[in-house]
Amino acid sequence: MSTSVHRIEIPTIMEVDSNILENVGSYILRAGIKKVVVFFGDGIRELFGEKILHSINSKSQLSTLETYDYDDIRIENLMPIAFSIPSNAEAIIGVGGGKVLDAAKYIAFLRNLPFISIPTSTSNDGFSSSGCSLIINGRRTSVHAVMPFGIIVDIAVIQNAPMKFIYSGLGDIVSKITAVFDWYYEENNKAARVNDFAAMLAKKSVNSIVRMPYTQVTEEFFLKEMVDSLTMSGIAMQIADNSAPASGSEHLISHALDKILEKPQLHGIQVGIATYLMSLVQQHRYERIEKFLSDTGFFNYVEGLQMRADDFEKAIDLAPTIKPNRYTYLHVEENRIKAKELLRNNEILKRILK
Amino acid sequence: MSTSVHRIEIPTIMEVDSNILENVGSYILRAGIKKVVVFFGDGIRELFGEKILHSINSKSQLSTLETYDYDDIRIENLMPIAFSIPSNAEAIIGVGGGKVLDAAKYIAFLRNLPFISIPTSTSNDGFSSSGCSLIINGRRTSVHAVMPFGIIVDIAVIQNAPMKFIYSGLGDIVSKITAVFDWYYEENNKAARVNDFAAMLAKKSVNSIVRMPYTQVTEEFFLKEMVDSLTMSGIAMQIADNSAPASGSEHLISHALDKILEKPQLHGIQVGIATYLMSLVQQHRYERIEKFLSDTGFFNYVEGLQMRADDFEKAIDLAPTIKPNRYTYLHVEENRIKAKELLRNNEILKRILK
Amino acid sequence: MSTSVHRIEIPTIMEVDSNILENVGSYILRAGIKKVVVFFGDGIRELFGEKILHSINSKSQLSTLETYDYDDIRIENLMPIAFSIPSNAEAIIGVGGGKVLDAAKYIAFLRNLPFISIPTSTSNDGFSSSGCSLIINGRRTSVHAVMPFGIIVDIAVIQNAPMKFIYSGLGDIVSKITAVFDWYYEENNKAARVNDFAAMLAKKSVNSIVRMPYTQVTEEFFLKEMVDSLTMSGIAMQIADNSAPASGSEHLISHALDKILEKPQLHGIQVGIATYLMSLVQQHRYERIEKFLSDTGFFNYVEGLQMRADDFEKAIDLAPTIKPNRYTYLHVEENRIKAKELLRNNEILKRILK
Amino acid sequence: MSTSVHRIEIPTIMEVDSNILENVGSYILRAGIKKVVVFFGDGIRELFGEKILHSINSKSQLSTLETYDYDDIRIENLMPIAFSIPSNAEAIIGVGGGKVLDAAKYIAFLRNLPFISIPTSTSNDGFSSSGCSLIINGRRTSVHAVMPFGIIVDIAVIQNAPMKFIYSGLGDIVSKITAVFDWYYEENNKAARVNDFAAMLAKKSVNSIVRMPYTQVTEEFFLKEMVDSLTMSGIAMQIADNSAPASGSEHLISHALDKILEKPQLHGIQVGIATYLMSLVQQHRYERIEKFLSDTGFFNYVEGLQMRADDFEKAIDLAPTIKPNRYTYLHVEENRIKAKELLRNNEILKRILK
Repeated sequence: MSTSVHRIEIPTIMEVDSNILENVGSYILRAGIKKVVVFFGDGIRELFGEKILHSINSKSQLSTLETYDYDDIRIENLMPIAFSIPSNAEAIIGVGGGKVLDAAKYIAFLRNLPFISIPTSTSNDGFSSSGCSLIINGRRTSVHAVMPFGIIVDIAVIQNAPMKFIYSGLGDIVSKITAVFDWYYEENNKAARVNDFAAMLAKKSVNSIVRMPYTQVTEEFFLKEMVDSLTMSGIAMQIADNSAPASGSEHLISHALDKILEKPQLHGIQVGIATYLMSLVQQHRYERIEKFLSDTGFFNYVEGLQMRADDFEKAIDLAPTIKPNRYTYLHVEENRIKAKELLRNNEILKRILK
Repeated sequence: MSTSVHRIEIPTIMEVDSNILENVGSYILRAGIKKVVVFFGDGIRELFGEKILHSINSKSQLSTLETYDYDDIRIENLMPIAFSIPSNAEAIIGVGGGKVLDAAKYIAFLRNLPFISIPTSTSNDGFSSSGCSLIINGRRTSVHAVMPFGIIVDIAVIQNAPMKFIYSGLGDIVSKITAVFDWYYEENNKAARVNDFAAMLAKKSVNSIVRMPYTQVTEEFFLKEMVDSLTMSGIAMQIADNSAPASGSEHLISHALDKILEKPQLHGIQVGIATYLMSLVQQHRYERIEKFLSDTGFFNYVEGLQMRADDFEKAIDLAPTIKPNRYTYLHVEENRIKAKELLRNNEILKRILK
Repeated sequence: MSTSVHRIEIPTIMEVDSNILENVGSYILRAGIKKVVVFFGDGIRELFGEKILHSINSKSQLSTLETYDYDDIRIENLMPIAFSIPSNAEAIIGVGGGKVLDAAKYIAFLRNLPFISIPTSTSNDGFSSSGCSLIINGRRTSVHAVMPFGIIVDIAVIQNAPMKFIYSGLGDIVSKITAVFDWYYEENNKAARVNDFAAMLAKKSVNSIVRMPYTQVTEEFFLKEMVDSLTMSGIAMQIADNSAPASGSEHLISHALDKILEKPQLHGIQVGIATYLMSLVQQHRYERIEKFLSDTGFFNYVEGLQMRADDFEKAIDLAPTIKPNRYTYLHVEENRIKAKELLRNNEILKRILK
Repeated sequence: MSTSVHRIEIPTIMEVDSNILENVGSYILRAGIKKVVVFFGDGIRELFGEKILHSINSKSQLSTLETYDYDDIRIENLMPIAFSIPSNAEAIIGVGGGKVLDAAKYIAFLRNLPFISIPTSTSNDGFSSSGCSLIINGRRTSVHAVMPFGIIVDIAVIQNAPMKFIYSGLGDIVSKITAVFDWYYEENNKAARVNDFAAMLAKKSVNSIVRMPYTQVTEEFFLKEMVDSLTMSGIAMQIADNSAPASGSEHLISHALDKILEKPQLHGIQVGIATYLMSLVQQHRYERIEKFLSDTGFFNYVEGLQMRADDFEKAIDLAPTIKPNRYTYLHVEENRIKAKELLRNNEILKRILK
């Protein structure tokens, strides 16, 4: 019935804390899973493989059927692996960065198995969302997969990940401000229907961290908040049944940069800059965003990356064509003009973009 | 299967904004509902009845089958009304404070109809939770009912509600800090299993508001955040399938006061004081709580209520017996002793309690 | 989304076999339940109490918190019991006939606990449906409750129940033929929407038994088929989210008789006769129904009950007023006239009704 | 919770009747779908394309985005098509035999779109089940896909399909008798857990048709019953979350024949013969099966197919290796010996197998 309460899916296992990789086995077993297949991203096994595999295989009732070192997101290569996995597998575990998580998540989807997500860096909300990004017919494509059954994030691991991943995560989080604003803009222009609960979660996810006191971004309490926020962002998309609560015009700029550039920067890095830019165009909460990206050291960090204003200019023009069915601020020409002017005149943008 | 992703229910309609009572009809119709029964709390019809009923009945496809002025939460009186409601009713709407919302919510549950919650004051998270508090066999009892299908909160209305309701809402929100801490304490003592996602939502709900800048508590942006936070708290309970993420030792003190006192204060008023007390016992985030309750004017407000330390002392001793199956800080004697000492020695508590 | 697959609920425990009362404990434990409250219908404890309670309490992990001898379906009396049940109860078990099952089912609904249905006679499909029939404001009323979490039917027990219960069960089963026909009639008259899957289950439930060979109705294989059919009928209603697949004009006549008569006969007895009558009015599969009710001995049995044609005549006129929103054959005057003529002229009806 | 009622998915659209292809558009629209992509099996567009496409495109709000003539079940070929389907598609429709239905069903699964199944022949229960059979790494493989959102079967079309499809459908239906018997056998040997509700549906599905009177198998009423039975069989598998209720030792023989033979016969043809054979091995309801397969003309039909006893003998030996984790009658050597003796000595088998 249209009048039944809306049902959504959330992870059954959710553990976010320091030094918990040795508990992975207990978490899995407690959820009733006994036989798993584990995918490690390149180089990840060396770092965490022993700890994780030991915590699994030291349990008498729990066992690892197969392990892979894998980072390939071309669907034609995923397929044969997905269907070669033993029929008695009860769950797929992915450990590492974005690529292996996307690969393992899609394999879990194809085999109708629960997926357990163990990110070793949290540069975006992919580890907690139902979508994934694969290479299909040679092109990077966002496809539907499955909501993670489990999310296990060891903050001590995130802490020791390269700074670029932390800054990318912060860039992705702050983007919810402009994304949600674009979403309401679409609704006001009859181009979309906002799911208010999803919008609320997305806003809460960013507000709780941008308003939080901290001494340095690598401190445990701050990173835990970041991971929680990225997780809520992933769930907000699931509730909305689309990416709108987490991805607006700022994401379109980043997607456009991915097309334009030989070597794009990390998703969240590009998104963070685009978020500051779009908040100025939207004239919405830009002081807050500026303060957050300055205080955290995000701006200083990206200043060293030699990114070019020309590329952003091209990306702004390309942005609306990425998702022609949407109607964000950048789908309106005057806003694209405004955005390009800001690239030239805004002090911060002038400083961080060459 | 135990390994299926966890499904939860969330409201389909969720609208939180200023001056939206005139849109109630559109929200309902958009959700596919055509025939409704409306319950107003005492005195509420005079204030908002015309606006709401007009917005409903002005729609050609939408109609009001019956309206009630009702504030009685004795189950023996609810029953006959519930089963006298016309069989073609498609939804039950409750408008007003805690009592009418609980009554209407329970009637919706008994008739297996969607419930639409329109609080005119948000002194606690009842408007967004699946539970309700009724008088059964003469005693106030918390019973299971149904998750609201719709939540519609007009911030302009909340703004004009007496300050005691706003302070009560703030007191209920801040209590998530001690409640979640008690929950993890229970888990560490093998007396409960924390649902990490519910705990995260509860923490986000309070963190986003206690860290938020504002000039006065009655400003729209601040109240919207409060309402969103109370809503998330209601949902967190639904995810946990119990009240633990939103209700710990601080709530036990308030429940105990309800038993002890002739005229208890508003739930959230009592809870707010008890939260500050318990945060000192738990030695967890008490500076944050103290700052929040001071800055918002909560402490100054309650100072005028002539509440008595003796009653709190009795309540502390009674607290563990309220929920004997739980294991909060107050279920341990030394913590009860510590709490009672704080009543006598803590400067703020000495000031606000006679 | 309106385009999501339709989700329905089915029992987790379903055991239908001979001499299985001693396994009740194992079935419950296997489903993860540890603490139960048991309701016995009047006189049922003497017959089966020891066997059932022993099978529960002999399990070390499983225990009975409370037991009741209960047959009262007045809601004002159910209420206090429902809310006095210990908070650590994990399931409600009902053992006996229609009344105790309805009472226990409603108590389970009020307490949001799983309900386990153990009928000792299967005179209708109540043991497997989500609805129940209570006395509210002094009148017998059908209310929404909860789908049984478990259905356990010991065929050996059903076998030894008085014949009237078996014939009543057969009468209720055969009624699916006229009920489904009425439902399609309603759809053709734009007064309802048939859920084709529910209709199919209802038809299968009756077809599998009316076409089945047997030597006597009390043989195990035949009774197992009857119980399975009644179970499917209960589930068909749940899928349709209303009683239409299992209850048409023939049920309206029975409901009307309940109002008219001092001492009505068993539901299924009245329904069976009304089904034969209505199949003649509908001119649909009446030979099949006549053969089934003759061969099973149903007609011979009811002939001894001294039921009166006059009462059926009154019931036919009253029938459409019982459910004014429906549009069955009996909602059309010419069919009521036809039906009343048949009471006078049909050989079988003349024989079984005085 | 383990104690929540079990939720299953059933089709939202289910229409089984004669001459209903012209209503396909109305059925789809009524379910809230507006834009569809249609896959026709080879040669199917010529037969039914115009009628179906007209019924869709004649609706102003409904439109066909793309149509394909397609019968390829190699996953590497499905992939690119699946992801080239326009992003505004709201449902995938498959029209034809087993291959196109499997292909379209999998494409719907990959794109997370509802699948509408319009079989033009019903030689097995694939049109109503969530699984499908694809060619992966060159081998025929059963994979998880999605439960059909809609099932539309035009009996007039089924009536005119070649007899082999009807006999294959009957062979697949009767196999539920041996399949369910094998399932209980597995449970008694602690090798499986029977889902009693799934087993009941499977039994009802076959009992309602084997006990049904008819003059010839091509008559509408009989074929409708067959289609309903195959549909229930598909749903029974979905409830059990595996194929056990619909597929036992008799299916293993058929799968083995598929491996052995250059040109296997239709699935249901092989299964029907194997069912008769296994019912003799199980000594369970073989008279009923013999009568049904004789009366319907199944045995006479297969007699003309020149199938060889030697192949069945090889298949019997190979059978247990097809699903090593199961424990059917054929997983026990003495039963394989018994089965092979029957091939040589049973009069009917001697007649129909060369």
